[in-house]
Amino acid sequence: MASTLIVPDCSSSTAAGASCFIPVNKIRIRRSVFHVHQQISIARWGHKASLLNIDTRRLFSPMALTVASNAETSAKVIDGKSVAKHIREEISTEISRMKEAIGVIPGLAVVLVGDRKDSATYVRNKKKACDDVGIKSYEIHLSEDSTEQEVLKYISEFNDDPSIHGILVQLPLPRHMNEENVLNAVSIDKDVDGFHPLNIGRLAMRGREPMFVPCTPKGCIVLLHRYGVTIKGKRAVVIGRSNIVGMPAALLLQREDATVTIVHSRTKNPEEIVRQADIIISAAGQPNMVRGSWIKPGAVIIDVGINPVDVRSKSPRGYHLVGDVCYEEACRVASAITPVPGGVGPMTIAMLLSNTLSSAKRAHNFD
Amino acid sequence: MASTLIVPDCSSSTAAGASCFIPVNKIRIRRSVFHVHQQISIARWGHKASLLNIDTRRLFSPMALTVASNAETSAKVIDGKSVAKHIREEISTEISRMKEAIGVIPGLAVVLVGDRKDSATYVRNKKKACDDVGIKSYEIHLSEDSTEQEVLKYISEFNDDPSIHGILVQLPLPRHMNEENVLNAVSIDKDVDGFHPLNIGRLAMRGREPMFVPCTPKGCIVLLHRYGVTIKGKRAVVIGRSNIVGMPAALLLQREDATVTIVHSRTKNPEEIVRQADIIISAAGQPNMVRGSWIKPGAVIIDVGINPVDVRSKSPRGYHLVGDVCYEEACRVASAITPVPGGVGPMTIAMLLSNTLSSAKRAHNFD
Repeated sequence: MASTLIVPDCSSSTAAGASCFIPVNKIRIRRSVFHVHQQISIARWGHKASLLNIDTRRLFSPMALTVASNAETSAKVIDGKSVAKHIREEISTEISRMKEAIGVIPGLAVVLVGDRKDSATYVRNKKKACDDVGIKSYEIHLSEDSTEQEVLKYISEFNDDPSIHGILVQLPLPRHMNEENVLNAVSIDKDVDGFHPLNIGRLAMRGREPMFVPCTPKGCIVLLHRYGVTIKGKRAVVIGRSNIVGMPAALLLQREDATVTIVHSRTKNPEEIVRQADIIISAAGQPNMVRGSWIKPGAVIIDVGINPVDVRSKSPRGYHLVGDVCYEEACRVASAITPVPGGVGPMTIAMLLSNTLSSAKRAHNFD
Repeated sequence: MASTLIVPDCSSSTAAGASCFIPVNKIRIRRSVFHVHQQISIARWGHKASLLNIDTRRLFSPMALTVASNAETSAKVIDGKSVAKHIREEISTEISRMKEAIGVIPGLAVVLVGDRKDSATYVRNKKKACDDVGIKSYEIHLSEDSTEQEVLKYISEFNDDPSIHGILVQLPLPRHMNEENVLNAVSIDKDVDGFHPLNIGRLAMRGREPMFVPCTPKGCIVLLHRYGVTIKGKRAVVIGRSNIVGMPAALLLQREDATVTIVHSRTKNPEEIVRQADIIISAAGQPNMVRGSWIKPGAVIIDVGINPVDVRSKSPRGYHLVGDVCYEEACRVASAITPVPGGVGPMTIAMLLSNTLSSAKRAHNFD
């Protein structure tokens, strides 16, 4: 039976002193977290066709770093919205160049099954993002009671269609379908999600290169690069070990020569381990779990969590979004931090667009 | 320019007080270590067809734990030689049962290219181990100047041959061949090495099962299981991040709910991190690198290193083998430790036999 613990709501978007109730048994990181799963659909919109398919090393001017607004804070804000906008502009320019040079327009196909409103929203957002940069998007919308065979048939057609360079299957699928079967049916050359085990295996192995990297973790690393954060030789802690975010984020950090620890639901004393990290990537899906006392002074924090917190009395929407990290507390200790929203979120879709462009370039041997 | 540092040779198999010279620049863990590579050929002889294809949970009687011989020590010796013998007996029994029930004999094919003496020895040892348990082995020995195409042709034939359930390509291959191409040609169903990226990807992903697991890391985990070492919730440190040992060992520990950190050549202050570990798996290929002061009291140590140390004046062979861990020092601090030799080494070939049996069982749907 869950008891509750009153903790200060330290998110930056609520009035100071407000409290939220977190069940004590949720203080530990859960193995499977609803809010992380909520992000699957976002995560599915972005990857990298190769680890270097965008110029992740280009640093923003130091002027781009803005200090968090609270007077007590010192952490720099890692502005994912701004970086993502910049990347989308770069992608748009590259697409125009490719179209002019060889007449090819990147194409992204999306398979949506059922009538989930959130899934429909994600698909709509993706379509708009594609339109904005010049990627042609194709959508197949099947009814909830479609068969797995029908989905596989469309995937097969997209696999064979040379005008399509990326294929996304919007998750979650209806329960009567085998998600693994469906995802594995996507051609490895068009798996812009990077969820295929062959891609993950290549990501894990030294001397191998994945075709695509899952977009959310890639977005995290690109943020670190663009803000000039040194990864090599640093202690990094990833909180959460999902296939979509935590695990590939850890593999990416390791490829960049960080010393990586994954903290998860079975970790004892996670705060002690997190406190050793120079770089924290949190994808636990636990609102405000990482407190100021968990953070090493000067650490850099990438907060992947997007957790709705109930504020029915204060917002007509009834909730607001907070990260896994107590933003206000963290701002006083960390050297840099991503806000929620406006941090990792916008990077995910930018990485999808980047992956689709890279796939098209690779298919047409265009550099 | 490498300077040298005199450190006591703390291995158990040399006279107390002898010293060895280790270049200072070797004190850090090297990225690519000769002695780890030396083990490739051993490592190639064993895996698991599924993560549970042998009864890894069966505990030895506590009587099987023997205290290290030095009077000052307290650590229990994890006797890999004995465990491996026990597993080979189990495999032999299973092979007899399968042969009687369905008339199938597991088959293992080995492709050896060139005239390296060490490779020839490994192949011979493997053949003998197969003979001992009743696995039929097939060997193709090609000359050093064979073409990659010839190797691929034999692999293709083995892939198609239903009497062969496992295929090994003895590494290293001659320089004019592309190792990745050759290894990738082995059918995923017969990749008893478990080195295929698809297997590694499945190993990394929650909810997926690899067909085979690389044998040396699997041997490490089986030793922990057989000696009743709790992994879940423990801090584990893996030293080294090779595709063959370190990386898959870390993935296996994580699958068992340990909190895992990989220490590697770019890690600063590795001793601080190692000192936090309840379980240490070392695959650095650095003789006596892990000192007593690096070890948390009561830790369990699996030492994968097999490093030849020059003792020309004392041995007609000119060298003896030591692990990555200072055995004598570690014995005074750890609760249990594998010796070198006689620890992980014998487990590798046992896991290969196990993987080959599992592959045959799977091919014939025999339980």
